[in-house]
Amino acid sequence: MRATLHTLEQTIRRRRSADPSVSYVAKLSGKGRAKIAQKVGEEAVETVIAAMAGDRGEVIGESADLFFHLLMLLADLDIPLDAVLDELDRREGLSGIAEKAARPKD
Amino acid sequence: MRATLHTLEQTIRRRRSADPSVSYVAKLSGKGRAKIAQKVGEEAVETVIAAMAGDRGEVIGESADLFFHLLMLLADLDIPLDAVLDELDRREGLSGIAEKAARPKD
Amino acid sequence: MRATLHTLEQTIRRRRSADPSVSYVAKLSGKGRAKIAQKVGEEAVETVIAAMAGDRGEVIGESADLFFHLLMLLADLDIPLDAVLDELDRREGLSGIAEKAARPKD
Amino acid sequence: MRATLHTLEQTIRRRRSADPSVSYVAKLSGKGRAKIAQKVGEEAVETVIAAMAGDRGEVIGESADLFFHLLMLLADLDIPLDAVLDELDRREGLSGIAEKAARPKD
Repeated sequence: MRATLHTLEQTIRRRRSADPSVSYVAKLSGKGRAKIAQKVGEEAVETVIAAMAGDRGEVIGESADLFFHLLMLLADLDIPLDAVLDELDRREGLSGIAEKAARPKD
Repeated sequence: MRATLHTLEQTIRRRRSADPSVSYVAKLSGKGRAKIAQKVGEEAVETVIAAMAGDRGEVIGESADLFFHLLMLLADLDIPLDAVLDELDRREGLSGIAEKAARPKD
Repeated sequence: MRATLHTLEQTIRRRRSADPSVSYVAKLSGKGRAKIAQKVGEEAVETVIAAMAGDRGEVIGESADLFFHLLMLLADLDIPLDAVLDELDRREGLSGIAEKAARPKD
Repeated sequence: MRATLHTLEQTIRRRRSADPSVSYVAKLSGKGRAKIAQKVGEEAVETVIAAMAGDRGEVIGESADLFFHLLMLLADLDIPLDAVLDELDRREGLSGIAEKAARPKD
């Protein structure tokens, strides 16, 4: 229960209108959605490769990159992180019910 | 500041040893790291495509899938989500310093 | 100098209008460009994973899948395979010139 | 029925042992399989994005990049292009039989 991703979401949204010569977020956002989406795809590929190489340090770094660019893509589409977390909560609710239903009767 | 991802992390870790006929997490984990990594890659591709199509509902669903399978991959490598969030905090710290340094003197 | 890819290109173009209950090409094409593009992304991820696992048999199978779906995507955009091969020839021409220019004088 | 890909395959194999300061192939190969695989993944993502954007010129360029790096990955694994083309021929043979079997009797 820490604020990292929500704080990052706010930082990203604020920096989108910053000076592109100082802010990476402003610079990449200025290139448009396709370039942000491309980074999401690339960081996912790098995460996959680091995982296959069993390099835990690399997986941490690439996963951080992936989270960061996914938050940038959500911001570009004006989708709040909470919409994605709500969806995860909703599925876990359904999945809890499914697991209970599948559990053998006592 | 909500617990969704950390709760999901715990759920995933617990379900890895569940009955594969009931639990998706147990079933996919049983197929090994390559199959989990493959799902991370696939969900990233689907997120990218949904973003390019401008379909916000799809982006929410695919991002949720991507978060979920990334948490599964981290669990498979025994990497705590907090290690990735720590890395994001560390970078934001550095980036805050960089922004201050780049800011014109008053 | 074999005809495999050009023959496959013709077969794919012909099958796009076949009966989707018999033809995979017709079925996938009927789902639209996003689904074909998704397959290209997924097969690339699987090729990457097979390569990282050092599984040569899997790399052959996944590369074949990747070639196949890339030809399907080109067909969907009405781009001839030859346009891509022309581009490769053009680059090799440039690169031959660059290598000669970089070569130390005798 | 043109030699582009087989010629490129030979060029790539020859350049792997060239001077990395002159040859891109030698430079990237020197970084190891993970970096070549990463390029395959990245070029596939870029092809997907160009296709979704409907930018035919970009699709041609990115597909050429994808072919090129896939040939580099095959070379790194010492897999001949012909092994992949043989697999495509084999599948088309099977698929021809399947289509005949599924065809309504005259």
